[in-house]
Amino acid sequence: MYQNHIAKPFNHPSALASATIQPPLRVGLLGLGTVGGGTYRVLRRNAQLIADRAGRHIKICMVAVRDLERAAVLVDGDVVLTDDPFQLVQNPNLDVIVESIGGTTIARELVMLSIAAGKHVVTANKALLALHGTEIFSAACANGMMVAYEGAVAVTIPIIKALREGLTANRVNWVAGIINGTTNFVLSEMDSNGLDFDTALKEAQRKGYAEQAPTFDVDGIDAAHKLALLASNAFGIPLQFDCVHVEGIRAVEQRDVEFAKRLGFSIKLLGVAQRTARGISLRVHPALIASSNLLAHVEGSMNAVMVHGDAAGLTMYYGAGAGAEQTASAVIADLVDVSRFMGLAPQNRVPYLAFQESAMASQPMVALADICFSYYLRVDLCRGTHGLDGLAPLLEVADVQLVQSELLENPGTSEYATLLLLTASGPQQNIDALVTSIEQQAGVLGPVKRMRIECLD
Amino acid sequence: MYQNHIAKPFNHPSALASATIQPPLRVGLLGLGTVGGGTYRVLRRNAQLIADRAGRHIKICMVAVRDLERAAVLVDGDVVLTDDPFQLVQNPNLDVIVESIGGTTIARELVMLSIAAGKHVVTANKALLALHGTEIFSAACANGMMVAYEGAVAVTIPIIKALREGLTANRVNWVAGIINGTTNFVLSEMDSNGLDFDTALKEAQRKGYAEQAPTFDVDGIDAAHKLALLASNAFGIPLQFDCVHVEGIRAVEQRDVEFAKRLGFSIKLLGVAQRTARGISLRVHPALIASSNLLAHVEGSMNAVMVHGDAAGLTMYYGAGAGAEQTASAVIADLVDVSRFMGLAPQNRVPYLAFQESAMASQPMVALADICFSYYLRVDLCRGTHGLDGLAPLLEVADVQLVQSELLENPGTSEYATLLLLTASGPQQNIDALVTSIEQQAGVLGPVKRMRIECLD
Repeated sequence: MYQNHIAKPFNHPSALASATIQPPLRVGLLGLGTVGGGTYRVLRRNAQLIADRAGRHIKICMVAVRDLERAAVLVDGDVVLTDDPFQLVQNPNLDVIVESIGGTTIARELVMLSIAAGKHVVTANKALLALHGTEIFSAACANGMMVAYEGAVAVTIPIIKALREGLTANRVNWVAGIINGTTNFVLSEMDSNGLDFDTALKEAQRKGYAEQAPTFDVDGIDAAHKLALLASNAFGIPLQFDCVHVEGIRAVEQRDVEFAKRLGFSIKLLGVAQRTARGISLRVHPALIASSNLLAHVEGSMNAVMVHGDAAGLTMYYGAGAGAEQTASAVIADLVDVSRFMGLAPQNRVPYLAFQESAMASQPMVALADICFSYYLRVDLCRGTHGLDGLAPLLEVADVQLVQSELLENPGTSEYATLLLLTASGPQQNIDALVTSIEQQAGVLGPVKRMRIECLD
Repeated sequence: MYQNHIAKPFNHPSALASATIQPPLRVGLLGLGTVGGGTYRVLRRNAQLIADRAGRHIKICMVAVRDLERAAVLVDGDVVLTDDPFQLVQNPNLDVIVESIGGTTIARELVMLSIAAGKHVVTANKALLALHGTEIFSAACANGMMVAYEGAVAVTIPIIKALREGLTANRVNWVAGIINGTTNFVLSEMDSNGLDFDTALKEAQRKGYAEQAPTFDVDGIDAAHKLALLASNAFGIPLQFDCVHVEGIRAVEQRDVEFAKRLGFSIKLLGVAQRTARGISLRVHPALIASSNLLAHVEGSMNAVMVHGDAAGLTMYYGAGAGAEQTASAVIADLVDVSRFMGLAPQNRVPYLAFQESAMASQPMVALADICFSYYLRVDLCRGTHGLDGLAPLLEVADVQLVQSELLENPGTSEYATLLLLTASGPQQNIDALVTSIEQQAGVLGPVKRMRIECLD
């Protein structure tokens, strides 16, 4: 079947000519750290390739840094360096500002000043947008500026583009994802190498996947930032970070990871934005996912997001959740988009949060306690207790159905037996009642460990 | 953490006002079958939601069908029906034509006429574009028209958008995917239900996943059409369907599926476009994929595409590969894109095949025989033969390394023993020599079955 066939590309003289006369996009870069440095590096390495796609060069003309001497070694001689970011955002010869300094105070101020100065903005700063996005998008809208932020959610994965453009036909039912690479790395280590949480976290820190102060990641806050952005793009609701129910992974024990696997599940920190009959649920928490689900196979620091729409059904997007060049990939894609669409009337551009401003509307929020889940329950029992006498009447009183149960007589070196229960889906109050009644039984050691099961179907 | 917080959406009076005055996009639909009917249905059901995103209504104004009476029942009264598609594409009151009649003869003629008449075109017809894309894009370029085709590859998955826009920063190293739902369904049935090829194919036909004349799917031609489109978007090479090495799945036996699983692999029909040191390889063939790879877990009629770029690393995209509303999801996303970007100068729009026309260039093609693979070899032996005496010297002479071997003394009800070999990666000529020498050994029954292993790393 193979033929050494050389086809001719299609060429049209007028397209050729007009493509070559487009002036470069003039970019100002705030910060030359991980994201800024990666963006500079990829833009330089792939300059011609990117221009071949974009139809014009994407040129970093000016960079604001703290240490001018260090930066001078990193960038080419024709790049203007400044240690005054306020000067950079006022430069009338720049079209677009890339915010890559992080944080939510100076970054916010500089982004707002950029917009006021008539610059488009590209950022991968999820905290900034989750907390101040409404203000930032509003100012940008008023000034006719674009604010692009593909790198803010699941970094390399063009999930914002998929939601805003690829799935425009769909009523989105839910979005669910592994959107924090640090916690997924920690949970993967606990699973594949049998490490406990603290050791796995230290390993993540050693490898650079976790900060020395890891609370933003480990406690689910970073994932909640991203989830707020995903939810607005999915449902046309305002950014509502403070409506996200957030639980981190500190309470996940290694043996729960092991027991979950035994039962055919993986434990993942999930962010879920779900449309229910009574409103929207926004939640970040560790959950059991059946191993038949693709998300259960997302390992290490990788990210993945599933979207369920009424027309497309289930789609999934997978890629790296962090990294210098990985983030650069998203930032540069945003720059190319900006270079293309800055010529459009603002109302013809892709809306900031997928929906036209006039169409965005709040929807009722549903508390997590009002959503039915299946649960994983772990009951530690005194040695010698065979199962849990009297479980059947407790289940009946609490109105909870069991799907599966398993008694482990000798789980490793522990001094007790362990009863694992998987419940059918039911109201949280019933599970609460069941757990309370189990904890009052003789032979039960300590509190019952519980974790939600996300079905994602 | 949950709060019943109601945030205000950002509104700006001028944006609101301008959003409401945009006229609807006027669409002409060629055909009201699976794709056309699905598109009409989703556009009607989600009309307001889509307008809320697009900033204007997407209105099907005219439909060309064979059976006017049947169509009159399906569409609203304000839609103009015609049984003359040539009249439709000439209608001066239409902005864009959706080609959903299929095939490559009349469809081609109508698409070319639409372009000549100054209409943008949306199609999900991969055969049309793989065979006539160069001509179609060239005409569209000359006339300043868009031709959008997200639904042509892996239907619901916005993979064309990901390649053309999401990954613009990247030098793409390879693209690999399960891009034919029919064959993936057949292989999944052979795997999970132990069916032989013929029975699995009948099951696929019974469920509507396979045509009654299934050769396009089963023999890999459909996947090759899609691969040609993916390769051009990845590498900036012209469409070269006839450079794709194509093997279908007819030769895959159920026991090979079973043996592969035993060795830790799944057999999938893969389309691969790969940049090598000596040029581009385009290939469609059944391959073993390690079960640690996400693609190995893509079941049933689902599709998935992996892209490896130098900045982003590995990303993957997963979704349904067929279906009426699934295809509609892609077609409507294209319509919204067209509605947004028809106001742009052509040179600012996303290029047809990701790269500016002036930047597209042929690259050398590499024959499959010149690429090193690891192989799965199945050697059927006379009963009573213990292993293969003299294998070691054959391996040495052919210069092939073994990674794994397993002798199955009693594989089910067969009358022979089976030797399974996994080789290290090596030149095809060495494998050819090994296979020939094995087949000449006493005790070897029939030809050695061989299949490539795709590592995808």
